[in-house]
Amino acid sequence: MISSFLCPDAFLSPLAIDAAVMRALDEDLGRAGDVTSIATIPEGTEGRAWIIARQTGVIAGLPFIEAAFRKLAPEIEITGQVRDGAKVEAKTALMMIAGDARAMLSAERVALNFVGHLSGIASATAAFVQRIAHTKARICCTRKTTPGLRALQKYAVRCGGGFNHRFGLDDAVLIKDNHIAAAGSITKAVKAARMGTAHMVKIEVEVDTLKQLEEALKIGVDTILLDNMPPETLRKAVAMSDGRAVLEASGNIAIGTVRAVAETGVDYISSGAITHSAINLDLGLDF
Amino acid sequence: MISSFLCPDAFLSPLAIDAAVMRALDEDLGRAGDVTSIATIPEGTEGRAWIIARQTGVIAGLPFIEAAFRKLAPEIEITGQVRDGAKVEAKTALMMIAGDARAMLSAERVALNFVGHLSGIASATAAFVQRIAHTKARICCTRKTTPGLRALQKYAVRCGGGFNHRFGLDDAVLIKDNHIAAAGSITKAVKAARMGTAHMVKIEVEVDTLKQLEEALKIGVDTILLDNMPPETLRKAVAMSDGRAVLEASGNIAIGTVRAVAETGVDYISSGAITHSAINLDLGLDF
Amino acid sequence: MISSFLCPDAFLSPLAIDAAVMRALDEDLGRAGDVTSIATIPEGTEGRAWIIARQTGVIAGLPFIEAAFRKLAPEIEITGQVRDGAKVEAKTALMMIAGDARAMLSAERVALNFVGHLSGIASATAAFVQRIAHTKARICCTRKTTPGLRALQKYAVRCGGGFNHRFGLDDAVLIKDNHIAAAGSITKAVKAARMGTAHMVKIEVEVDTLKQLEEALKIGVDTILLDNMPPETLRKAVAMSDGRAVLEASGNIAIGTVRAVAETGVDYISSGAITHSAINLDLGLDF
Amino acid sequence: MISSFLCPDAFLSPLAIDAAVMRALDEDLGRAGDVTSIATIPEGTEGRAWIIARQTGVIAGLPFIEAAFRKLAPEIEITGQVRDGAKVEAKTALMMIAGDARAMLSAERVALNFVGHLSGIASATAAFVQRIAHTKARICCTRKTTPGLRALQKYAVRCGGGFNHRFGLDDAVLIKDNHIAAAGSITKAVKAARMGTAHMVKIEVEVDTLKQLEEALKIGVDTILLDNMPPETLRKAVAMSDGRAVLEASGNIAIGTVRAVAETGVDYISSGAITHSAINLDLGLDF
Amino acid sequence: MISSFLCPDAFLSPLAIDAAVMRALDEDLGRAGDVTSIATIPEGTEGRAWIIARQTGVIAGLPFIEAAFRKLAPEIEITGQVRDGAKVEAKTALMMIAGDARAMLSAERVALNFVGHLSGIASATAAFVQRIAHTKARICCTRKTTPGLRALQKYAVRCGGGFNHRFGLDDAVLIKDNHIAAAGSITKAVKAARMGTAHMVKIEVEVDTLKQLEEALKIGVDTILLDNMPPETLRKAVAMSDGRAVLEASGNIAIGTVRAVAETGVDYISSGAITHSAINLDLGLDF
Amino acid sequence: MISSFLCPDAFLSPLAIDAAVMRALDEDLGRAGDVTSIATIPEGTEGRAWIIARQTGVIAGLPFIEAAFRKLAPEIEITGQVRDGAKVEAKTALMMIAGDARAMLSAERVALNFVGHLSGIASATAAFVQRIAHTKARICCTRKTTPGLRALQKYAVRCGGGFNHRFGLDDAVLIKDNHIAAAGSITKAVKAARMGTAHMVKIEVEVDTLKQLEEALKIGVDTILLDNMPPETLRKAVAMSDGRAVLEASGNIAIGTVRAVAETGVDYISSGAITHSAINLDLGLDF
Repeated sequence: MISSFLCPDAFLSPLAIDAAVMRALDEDLGRAGDVTSIATIPEGTEGRAWIIARQTGVIAGLPFIEAAFRKLAPEIEITGQVRDGAKVEAKTALMMIAGDARAMLSAERVALNFVGHLSGIASATAAFVQRIAHTKARICCTRKTTPGLRALQKYAVRCGGGFNHRFGLDDAVLIKDNHIAAAGSITKAVKAARMGTAHMVKIEVEVDTLKQLEEALKIGVDTILLDNMPPETLRKAVAMSDGRAVLEASGNIAIGTVRAVAETGVDYISSGAITHSAINLDLGLDF
Repeated sequence: MISSFLCPDAFLSPLAIDAAVMRALDEDLGRAGDVTSIATIPEGTEGRAWIIARQTGVIAGLPFIEAAFRKLAPEIEITGQVRDGAKVEAKTALMMIAGDARAMLSAERVALNFVGHLSGIASATAAFVQRIAHTKARICCTRKTTPGLRALQKYAVRCGGGFNHRFGLDDAVLIKDNHIAAAGSITKAVKAARMGTAHMVKIEVEVDTLKQLEEALKIGVDTILLDNMPPETLRKAVAMSDGRAVLEASGNIAIGTVRAVAETGVDYISSGAITHSAINLDLGLDF
Repeated sequence: MISSFLCPDAFLSPLAIDAAVMRALDEDLGRAGDVTSIATIPEGTEGRAWIIARQTGVIAGLPFIEAAFRKLAPEIEITGQVRDGAKVEAKTALMMIAGDARAMLSAERVALNFVGHLSGIASATAAFVQRIAHTKARICCTRKTTPGLRALQKYAVRCGGGFNHRFGLDDAVLIKDNHIAAAGSITKAVKAARMGTAHMVKIEVEVDTLKQLEEALKIGVDTILLDNMPPETLRKAVAMSDGRAVLEASGNIAIGTVRAVAETGVDYISSGAITHSAINLDLGLDF
Repeated sequence: MISSFLCPDAFLSPLAIDAAVMRALDEDLGRAGDVTSIATIPEGTEGRAWIIARQTGVIAGLPFIEAAFRKLAPEIEITGQVRDGAKVEAKTALMMIAGDARAMLSAERVALNFVGHLSGIASATAAFVQRIAHTKARICCTRKTTPGLRALQKYAVRCGGGFNHRFGLDDAVLIKDNHIAAAGSITKAVKAARMGTAHMVKIEVEVDTLKQLEEALKIGVDTILLDNMPPETLRKAVAMSDGRAVLEASGNIAIGTVRAVAETGVDYISSGAITHSAINLDLGLDF
Repeated sequence: MISSFLCPDAFLSPLAIDAAVMRALDEDLGRAGDVTSIATIPEGTEGRAWIIARQTGVIAGLPFIEAAFRKLAPEIEITGQVRDGAKVEAKTALMMIAGDARAMLSAERVALNFVGHLSGIASATAAFVQRIAHTKARICCTRKTTPGLRALQKYAVRCGGGFNHRFGLDDAVLIKDNHIAAAGSITKAVKAARMGTAHMVKIEVEVDTLKQLEEALKIGVDTILLDNMPPETLRKAVAMSDGRAVLEASGNIAIGTVRAVAETGVDYISSGAITHSAINLDLGLDF
Repeated sequence: MISSFLCPDAFLSPLAIDAAVMRALDEDLGRAGDVTSIATIPEGTEGRAWIIARQTGVIAGLPFIEAAFRKLAPEIEITGQVRDGAKVEAKTALMMIAGDARAMLSAERVALNFVGHLSGIASATAAFVQRIAHTKARICCTRKTTPGLRALQKYAVRCGGGFNHRFGLDDAVLIKDNHIAAAGSITKAVKAARMGTAHMVKIEVEVDTLKQLEEALKIGVDTILLDNMPPETLRKAVAMSDGRAVLEASGNIAIGTVRAVAETGVDYISSGAITHSAINLDLGLDF
């Protein structure tokens, strides 16, 4: 089922939400379920609560909250104006939830764990995006994601205004140093990739030097990843390429250095840290 | 299968390693697999590589590396002296891996994603532990974990010298404010919990004030969670309790404040940040 | 979804009900489904039936009946006053079910298999509980359960008035003879367990002799399992312990001997037979 | 993988063993695994133990023991002369297991739960079989099985010398009273079943009276289930049928009454109790 | 849930529909979902479309269409007079679907892949059935099915007017040449099968020659598979058998030869091609 | 594990082979397993057999054979010179398999169903490829695949010398008529797609007319799908495009018409029939 809390611009299979929520609930409820709530809360107690952002940030993960509560209490009432991708101030109420109190407390931590984690990623992404808004460069993510959560994290990057690089090893070609070494040269590796793939698969090559860049531009590829180059080298690369390939800068680019990189004229800046090392956004459920 | 790279003191179901690695490989290989390596690396090419820590830190996750490579190439050679829980310096080689180059490149990112994430948690935990080594207090984790990775993250906490709080809602009772409100009082909630649970389940109560602490100590529980109390209040709580209950301090305790909290005499200090917001440890696979 | 037929005092993850019912329906419907009903019952035939207890006993498993019928016919009408944990006389109607006759016959056996099995456990437990109602002792279960059904069987024990021991190897420490032998002594084993676990995990030691009991009491543990001791020894153990530990008697305690054991003053009596060898309660579906 | 401990005459998908053992280990190891053994047993400790039958009985389930230990320790040594289907005396050693002590203790309970449960069924079946060995009647099971364990329990029935009735609703037609009522008559129901099914599906009709038997014999079916008839009626049914159909007697036939039923000349006697209410066979693992 | 679009005479577990649709949607939506529709279709756009048969044929698979659309949009409106098993002309509208346009486009291909594939099988079956309608012979399928789709394909065969042979290796005995060779003779193999199986399992023997047929008739079996015999030999086989066994002709029988085979008097004609090599029926979704 | 029988140029996740084989074996072995072989073949019987191609064709699926046999008998001996992608003559022996006869017969049908199905697709693809070998055009597949088997079928297309179009809705953008209608125009739809996706995702537009082609070329996309155009129109399209986009011809292109289409100068020709309607290649297992 497609949630109305989803970010309108971001991609995520609706089946992925359901599967992730089931796994997380199962992990938290364990074999016996919420023993505290069953023992201490009279059956039939009703409650009303608000998901509150305790920090300023960009929200991602509200459909997971909806799914977590509905899985335990299908009739629960959930309302809210905010949807994923919204930038909110601290103390904003994101959703109102009303219904069976036991079910609400049983699902609370799972719900918050999703939205805290994904909003952290969206907020980290948005910080990068904002820093380079005056340039044409776009922020994108990598395959350096938390195991089992890649599609969710890439969705959160989109909520934060970033873009998605490959979702896996299978949806595009990215030729790195070891591939080049094994194939013999950039030229040979690109030719082999072209032989093996068809018209719907992009080919990218990672280069460390301007000499390698020259070879890649000559053989012709869709995208070139400029690995760990300082801004001055990146600027030369942009000049050399002159629009013949999309250029992506990569390599430990941080919030403090991203502006300088973007101003070199590259098209994309990729960051692993926005997915693998984002700080949770602080949210709570207030009854 | 029980891995020899597991931390000797930490808990993790061996089935959990296998399941997590399968899910992560499936997520990365997708439908078509590693199209780049198949297209560019001649079949049968052999390689040799080392997992290198690029930062100083505490290692967690080596059994996941082993499992990821073996899943694609059962005959691959894996050796290493370091095991989970070890503190290593930057540039330490953790493991040597030799075998089919395609399989090695196909599993590389999955392997590194696990060990980078879990070592980040172990290292964050170790930083807290070290800061309070002169006290009797122990660091422990919470249920604020990344969805689907709780058992792995709790294992990493142990690798870093921390301890584990509840694994889920089902393995201990933790009575919080909403439970107390619904039950009528701390006393009523604890009595209800005792009626409902047996001799192998611990009961903890969360208190915000010394008055609540007094009520909890009177009715008698195993553990009391002192929520968001400043050091001076914690010190009074320790005096009031006088050993009648295990005392756990909680509430946004950071690396800068943990020493002061520990020196109040509490038994445990719990932190959500060590699991949900740890920064990945930087590791690489060098061929 | 949380069923209104659940026993108010018993613990069971709502996800466990759904998973167990899906597995059982899949096992019974196989690849082709209910070939007899499709071939012989005209489509659209409506039916009305009652779940009848054919024996006196304590009921457990009604939410599984509800789930089994709803899985095949979501619109089916299900009503009933009785809920799990109720003691009923023979010939009591537990539930009325009305709707599509094919779906009702297809789900009948699965539904009855659950409630017959779990009510058998609840009834066996209740028989033990009743026999010792004049003492303070509580009946509890063990890990000697039918593979794949542990959480369900432990729920049924609660429905019958019993209590739950460990749900698995992971939620409490139970030090047995082989652990003691490997560690060197009870004292060493308990110290090791304390080093390795935190404040939310109970520690129990199994002892065979009063000498071992003495050692366990000295080092201090939460619970002591008195294995296979005759009533006179149990009585001495209770006197020795004098409230320093919870005492659990175990070892082939049967309905005929449980009263004598309970009267020794132990706190818990654990029985594997109530889960692994209970006789099904006879129930039927009458159209 | 096909185990050498399997009963030579019994049917069980090899995949079913693996799936059941994985589920049971997962259920017992939980999220953290065997915390007691990890904390108290020094790593690398080796052990040697024997699976001992503590009662006389017929064994079923040894392949599950093998699978459970190997799943945690693939290199473990397992030897044994006995295989499923063997009748053993009390104190017989069934298997010798040697290897990593932690793995052995972690898998012990799962292993014993399987073999205790299935040997209980095999032994209960064998008791029925022995009682009627002087007749031509065969004992068979029903669909009254423990949810999720049908294929395993039917395998155990075969180990005990019994035979298998339907495995599910899909592999044969069994027309019962509600089907007859809905179809209009036995004749109409059988004709409908013949129209709907092909040459590889048997058709059985359940009858309560000799008049119904007459109708069933006239229309012609493979098997007739004689429900709840006393021996004298069964004898008349056998005479009436005169070999025109296989006759199966059913309806709460117990160990005390089975001989009288078998001596009436029926071909099969079906019992739900041998699967749903068998008493575990007592076995242990002695180090 | 049991679909009203199911063929009234055909067998299929309702759980199989749900599982197959989930797998197919997951396969098509992948990690990111339908990126084209999300990017290009304004949220909230409503659509209305018709499933149209573009060829004359027999329909099978409409419940899969229903399930696919409902999985992504539970509130979608689906109506239609046609149900599985219907013979339709080209340009017939089978179903009208109205609702969220994004969800409709996301589920379209999965829905059409099911109904095109299964209608192809139903139509191929119907062509065989029609060719032999003047005889008593029935068309049946084999175990030569597309991996993972057996139950669905056998359902489609029923929709086309054919019958089902074994669903797997476990629901009937079929003794082939290798079994006979290993057992020593047809007689020995049949006796062994009778010893090992009970009254609800049919026994069939495959024979290549009339001499083998004679042996099979003598020992007595339910069904005899006449493998690769020309019509004249089949006619002799029918005469020899004289009703003592059900006779099934098999071996690359094609639409051009089936009439001659049926006219020999055999009871069943089995064909692998109707399941493994049917041509998709052409259907479309017209907005 | 990566099989040595895989086609060197084709893409398939090694996990997909294992999952598909497990599902197929489970489907065929059912609950009771291979009852015929257990009953009739003496335990321990050894056999030796050859997988034989009974028709000329291109082979795909040998790794599935290997996996199916090894799953039931890990020690089985499997040898063979042929690997996937090979063109073989009728009567060629593809693999020799030796080991436990029961296991071999139990896995036979599953193994053959895979290789027959996938070789049928590879052979159909190869027939198209051969017909256009004198042109630069490449044959590619579509998303019109058999539900649940997409990755396998796309692998088989590669074995036959074809190329792969999208694996799912998520790995590239394909803008069709309904997307264009909803977005307002080709230009608007392409702009929206570019806004929403990043540098690693190709964008294709489907056009029905040369006027639409003109619009697509003007806005600029990676690929243009020319739907249902006759050869003369295709030739004009090639001239108009003049290399500005990759051109793909589509729409019921058959073996008889493919040459004329290829000779127009298009780059790719896509066919649904090679996956959804290929005829199985006839193979057998000869003992």
